[in-house]
Amino acid sequence: MCLYCKDKDGGLVGDYKNGKYLKIGLLGLGTVGSGVAQLLAANEDHIAQRAGVNIKVKQALVRDINRVRPMDCVVPLTTRAEDILDDPETQVIVEVMGGQEPAFTYIMEALKRGKHVVTANKDLLANYGKELFAAAKEAGVDIYFEASVGGGIPIIRPLKDSLAGNRIEKVYGIVNGTTNYILSQMDQGITYEAALQQAKENGFAEADPSADVLGLDAARKIAILASIAFGARVRAADVTCVGIKDLEPLDLAYARELGYKVKLLALAQEIDGAVDVRVRPALLPHHHPLAAVDGVLNAIMVQGDAVGEVMFSGQGAGRMPTASAVVGDIIEVAHNISSGVKGRNGCTCFAAKPFCPPHKVRSSYFVRLEVQDKPGVMAKVAKAFGDAGVSLWSVIQKRQTERGAEIVIITHPTQGQNFDQALSALQSFPETFAIHQPMIVEGDEAYVAGHH
Amino acid sequence: MCLYCKDKDGGLVGDYKNGKYLKIGLLGLGTVGSGVAQLLAANEDHIAQRAGVNIKVKQALVRDINRVRPMDCVVPLTTRAEDILDDPETQVIVEVMGGQEPAFTYIMEALKRGKHVVTANKDLLANYGKELFAAAKEAGVDIYFEASVGGGIPIIRPLKDSLAGNRIEKVYGIVNGTTNYILSQMDQGITYEAALQQAKENGFAEADPSADVLGLDAARKIAILASIAFGARVRAADVTCVGIKDLEPLDLAYARELGYKVKLLALAQEIDGAVDVRVRPALLPHHHPLAAVDGVLNAIMVQGDAVGEVMFSGQGAGRMPTASAVVGDIIEVAHNISSGVKGRNGCTCFAAKPFCPPHKVRSSYFVRLEVQDKPGVMAKVAKAFGDAGVSLWSVIQKRQTERGAEIVIITHPTQGQNFDQALSALQSFPETFAIHQPMIVEGDEAYVAGHH
Repeated sequence: MCLYCKDKDGGLVGDYKNGKYLKIGLLGLGTVGSGVAQLLAANEDHIAQRAGVNIKVKQALVRDINRVRPMDCVVPLTTRAEDILDDPETQVIVEVMGGQEPAFTYIMEALKRGKHVVTANKDLLANYGKELFAAAKEAGVDIYFEASVGGGIPIIRPLKDSLAGNRIEKVYGIVNGTTNYILSQMDQGITYEAALQQAKENGFAEADPSADVLGLDAARKIAILASIAFGARVRAADVTCVGIKDLEPLDLAYARELGYKVKLLALAQEIDGAVDVRVRPALLPHHHPLAAVDGVLNAIMVQGDAVGEVMFSGQGAGRMPTASAVVGDIIEVAHNISSGVKGRNGCTCFAAKPFCPPHKVRSSYFVRLEVQDKPGVMAKVAKAFGDAGVSLWSVIQKRQTERGAEIVIITHPTQGQNFDQALSALQSFPETFAIHQPMIVEGDEAYVAGHH
Repeated sequence: MCLYCKDKDGGLVGDYKNGKYLKIGLLGLGTVGSGVAQLLAANEDHIAQRAGVNIKVKQALVRDINRVRPMDCVVPLTTRAEDILDDPETQVIVEVMGGQEPAFTYIMEALKRGKHVVTANKDLLANYGKELFAAAKEAGVDIYFEASVGGGIPIIRPLKDSLAGNRIEKVYGIVNGTTNYILSQMDQGITYEAALQQAKENGFAEADPSADVLGLDAARKIAILASIAFGARVRAADVTCVGIKDLEPLDLAYARELGYKVKLLALAQEIDGAVDVRVRPALLPHHHPLAAVDGVLNAIMVQGDAVGEVMFSGQGAGRMPTASAVVGDIIEVAHNISSGVKGRNGCTCFAAKPFCPPHKVRSSYFVRLEVQDKPGVMAKVAKAFGDAGVSLWSVIQKRQTERGAEIVIITHPTQGQNFDQALSALQSFPETFAIHQPMIVEGDEAYVAGHH
C-alpha cells in the first residue's frame, strides 16, 4: 500500500516541476487529514505557485492501513509514527489526528527533530500551548495552528499579525457549530434532545457529543484566542464553562419575544489588567451581527482599541474548510523554509495576567423561574434580588404552568456573586418549583450604556 | 518644529528599551497619517513586544508645517520628501498621503533606495500594482497594503496567505462606506440628494463625492482583491462600474417589498478562466449576510473551493481603523527586517487572464419602468423581453404614477447583451416614459439554483 497520487497527465506528483519541493508527513488521515491530502492534490499547481515549491504528502500515519478512505488521491500509508518522524526528508509534520495523546508526544518528537509543525489540534493548543511553543523555540522551528479555531475562517493569523497594533479589549463569538445548530433547531420550538438527535443524523454531532454540548470544545477555542488576544497564557481549564443541555425551547421563545436570540457564546475580555474567559449560553439582541449566525456557521468578533469591532465568519468545521486552514499554514511554513526564517510564529504570551474571579465579573442575566401562583410570591422574588443587590431590568409573568406561574427576569449588569446569592435565596423558598438555566445578556450596548 | 513624542515617564521615545529599533518615515500626516503616529505612540510598548523592536516615526512629510493636527503625540515634520527618502536611518516608508502623484513617485524612489513600503493607497495599487511590485522585487524589498481595502478589516493578507490553498471562485462585498451609508438612509425613504447631504454633514462623504457615488472607489478596491484572488492583474480601468446616484428611494422600497436590500456591490468572479469584475447596485435577499451590513460598515465575502464562503466585516474606513491596518503591516515589515527576509510579500499575479465581456456575463436584473397606462402595454413590455431572449421571474404592476403605470421586473439570469437589447426596445416605444437605473440581483442561491 504505497501508491502515489497521479496527476491529470498520469505523471507522478513526485515529478516536481520546479525542481523544488517540500515533503510533508500527515499524522492522521481521517476527515481532516484526507481533506488535506485531497486539497494538496486537487490544487497542486495553484498551491505550488503560491508556496514557491511543490508540496507533497510523503507519508500518512494511519491506524488501519486497509480502511477505505474518501479520497480521490492515494498517499503512501504507514502505521508506524517513526517512519514519518525519523524521515530526514520530511520537513513538515501535519498533525490532524486530534486528541491529546499520542498527538502531543508525536508533535514534541517532531519539534525536537527540527521539523516544523502544522496542527488543527485545539485540545493540545489549549492545554499544552506553553510546552509546544517552548519546544518549537528550543528547536528553532515553527508551529502553526490556524485550523484549531473556526475551521477555515482565517482568525489566528489575522488576530496575531494583522491586528497586532491593537490592544485587544474583547474577543467573542460562536465557535462551536454543533451547539449553534442545536440552538438554531431549538429556536424552531423542538426540544434539546430532538435537536441533538437531528444534529447526529445530519453529521453535525458526534456519537458522544459531551465536549460540544458542555461547552468544552468552545472553551478550548476561546482559550487559544484569548492567549493571542491578551498576550497571556490561557488554558482550557481557566475557562469557566456552561453548556446548553439544560436549555429548553421555552427559554429561546421567551428570549425571542424579548428581542433576543440565544447563542452559546465564547467570550474573553480584559478588565483592568485581568482576563475574563467564559463560555455561556447568552442572549444577543436581534440586530447584533452574531444573532444572524445560524446553523453550523461560526463567527468571531474582535474588538480592538484602534480597529473597533471586526467580525470573521464562515464554516467553522468540516473536512475541506478545515483543510483550507491547514494548507494555508503549510504554505506559510513553505515560505519560511525557502526564505530561511525560523521561529517566525513564536509564542506571544509575553505576560502572565490574573484571571477575573468569575463571581466578580459583571453581566446582565436572564433567568426563568417557576413559582407557586399565590399572592406575595412575586414580591418575595423581587425582594430576593433586591436583597442581593441585583436590580431588575425586566420582569415578565404571563404564563401559567401546570405547577404555577412562570416568571422571566432580566437583570441589570451585576456581579456573578450577587446574582448567585439571589438564586440561592430563591432556591430556599418553598414557593419555588424550578430555577431554569440562567443565561447572560450580551451585546446590548444601548441598554448597557444607559444603565451600567 | 522638531519635537519627539514624550512617553509617560517624560523620556524620549528615542530611548529604545531593547536597544533595537526601527525608524519609519511617514509620507502624509492627515487623517490616516496622524492616526498611525498616534497609534504607534499610544501602544508603543505593546507594539514593540509584538514587532520585536521599538518603532519610531522619525519624520513625517507634510504640506504645511504650521497646521494644527489632532494628535496627542508630536513627530518631527518636514516639507521636503527627500529629507525622508534620502535618510539612511529610515528603513520603512509609510505612504498615507493618498492620490496618484506625488505618492507614486515617492514610493518608487523609496523602493529604489531599498526601503520597505507600507501604503494605504488603493488608487496606486489598483492602477500601478504591476510597476510597484516590479520595483519592489528589483530592489529586494516589500510593499504591504492591507489598509488599501476595507480599512481595518484584515482582508489582503488573509486572502493572500491564509486562503492560499483555495482556488478562489468569487470575491464580493460592500467596500465603500459612503455609498452604504447613503443607501441605508435612502432605505428609510429619503432621496439620494438628502442622504448624500446627511453623509456630508456626518463626515461620511467628501465635498466632492464623485469617486464614491460613481463606484470608482469600490472599483479600485475590487481590482486589488481580484488581482490577489485570481492571481492575475486587474486594474481599476478593467472594472465595469455603475454607481448609485440614479437610484431612487422607490427602487429600494420595491426591493424591500420583494424581500431584498439594495447595496452597492463590488464583485469579482472567475468564469471558465476569464475574470468578471464589476461594481453594481444590487439586490441581496434579506437573509444574505451582506444585507445586514448597514451604515458605514464594510464586509467582504470570499468564496473558495475548499473553504466555502467566509466573510470579513468591520469599519471600512476612518482614522484609527485604517491606522490599525497600517501598523499591522509595519509590524510585519519589522519581522521581515529582523529575520533578514526580503521579498516575502511578492506579486502573486502569476498569469494573465482574459476578462469576461460585460455583455456576456449572466445576471438576474431588477428594473423599474414607467409606461403609459393603456391596454396592451404590459403585453408589449413582456414581448420586448421575450424577443430579446430574456425570461421574467417576477413582474409587478401596482402603482399609478402621475404619468401612468409603474412596472417592476426581475428577470431570470440572462446575458447582459440580452437585457440591454430588451431595454433598447422598451426605450423605443412611445408608451415608455422612463426606464429607471437597473440593478443586478445577487446571492439568491435557492432561486438561481432552481432556474439557472
